[in-house]
Amino acid sequence: MLQISLCPSPVLYPYYKTEQEEYTVVIVDIFRAGTTITTALMNGAVGIIPIATVEEAEIYAGNGFLVGGERGTKRLPFAHFGNAPEEYTRQAVEGKQLVLSTTNGTRAADIVAGALHVIIGAFINLEAVARYCIAKQKPVMVLASGWQNRMSTEDCLFAGALAATIVRLGEEVICEDGASVFQELWGNYNTHEKLMAYLNGRDHYERLRANKLERSVPYCTSLNLTEIVPELTFKISAASTDCPANRLFLPVTPPF
Amino acid sequence: MLQISLCPSPVLYPYYKTEQEEYTVVIVDIFRAGTTITTALMNGAVGIIPIATVEEAEIYAGNGFLVGGERGTKRLPFAHFGNAPEEYTRQAVEGKQLVLSTTNGTRAADIVAGALHVIIGAFINLEAVARYCIAKQKPVMVLASGWQNRMSTEDCLFAGALAATIVRLGEEVICEDGASVFQELWGNYNTHEKLMAYLNGRDHYERLRANKLERSVPYCTSLNLTEIVPELTFKISAASTDCPANRLFLPVTPPF
Repeated sequence: MLQISLCPSPVLYPYYKTEQEEYTVVIVDIFRAGTTITTALMNGAVGIIPIATVEEAEIYAGNGFLVGGERGTKRLPFAHFGNAPEEYTRQAVEGKQLVLSTTNGTRAADIVAGALHVIIGAFINLEAVARYCIAKQKPVMVLASGWQNRMSTEDCLFAGALAATIVRLGEEVICEDGASVFQELWGNYNTHEKLMAYLNGRDHYERLRANKLERSVPYCTSLNLTEIVPELTFKISAASTDCPANRLFLPVTPPF
Repeated sequence: MLQISLCPSPVLYPYYKTEQEEYTVVIVDIFRAGTTITTALMNGAVGIIPIATVEEAEIYAGNGFLVGGERGTKRLPFAHFGNAPEEYTRQAVEGKQLVLSTTNGTRAADIVAGALHVIIGAFINLEAVARYCIAKQKPVMVLASGWQNRMSTEDCLFAGALAATIVRLGEEVICEDGASVFQELWGNYNTHEKLMAYLNGRDHYERLRANKLERSVPYCTSLNLTEIVPELTFKISAASTDCPANRLFLPVTPPF
């Protein structure tokens, strides 16, 4: 029996957080940081360092790191990659440690540092994330990155998809209000085709289209392309003292 | 054509607020402050002063005001009423100016002071609120009070009910992401019976039941009992200098 809650904006995290911190946080940013991190690890990157500020990301770039960076859908001038998952090909990232700093997604990694397990959930690794949550047997909080602290449908809908998938895999769930709403909604959009059609017209898709970035949408709404789950770890990397990364996403795969 | 957005928690208001402040804010707290304020005005109260803090509410009580006050579902010790709409009978409130201070609902009145129009929406005045929004022809923001800054289904669902009702009355709407989600969900629960059955089991209903307050639920989920819309006005009341209320909810009715 797993409890599942949905925190619909990073700003609300303090109000959804429990005292014990004995839970699994699933950070979600479907368009596009979460899908991008998962893709980079799927294509052989050895670790992703999430960085909140542009200034800090630029220092990493200056110290020889490969940096993906974006603000308001625009690639940062010093960055090697933007935030589109299709840029993170095997050829480009295999064997590399990357730094990523995006508008919405990577800040979430800062605020959840106290949770027991922190992973990234995306539609491309939905079932693997469900298996991870079942294996850990801790309450699950889906932390939707949203858009500039506002609620975003596609991120919230992932909470519903996750609840439904956990049930399909044979585990019972108890959903709090928000997760329950989106579990019901997911019933209407639970295939790649329905999901893509539904999100076509939602706010975030329109923002992508306005910036000619909608080519990422079919990929970001694909289901179960990989078994890799990006898991936040808190080890000190071998970076220089100017780049004191103390946490990075590493790939884990079943069995968890 | 009306734009409708849903701010799912008072904490997120700064991120949903627009620069111009040329919009109608609909404050929603179905269980129970919003329904209670609407009921008190329906039963002849001449005005409701929303007060955020317990300390300030106690000063009003000491100065002879009738005070409704509640924290965490418990009536404040100095208050004349709790937060249950059924307490605010015609006999008790007709001709009176009341002060109300509750856990979630009355704080919202503090943060929206800059908006052009601020009203209270509840299921008991749903259609009247829709008519008000149509008459004003400004973008509509539904501000869901939620529970201790967390998202609450019944308040968010009101945004969907309002969008659907505005459409039924002949006006086109453009919903942002959150309002769109709940407009779809409302299609499944758009009668008193379905709504009551759905909310039975949701988080807030369970909290009410745990505190033996579930008797308010059938009333709070009734549709269109009154044409009164509580509208926030910013006039200085005739209160003493110890009670410098500068805003209160007054009843308005169609035509708006």
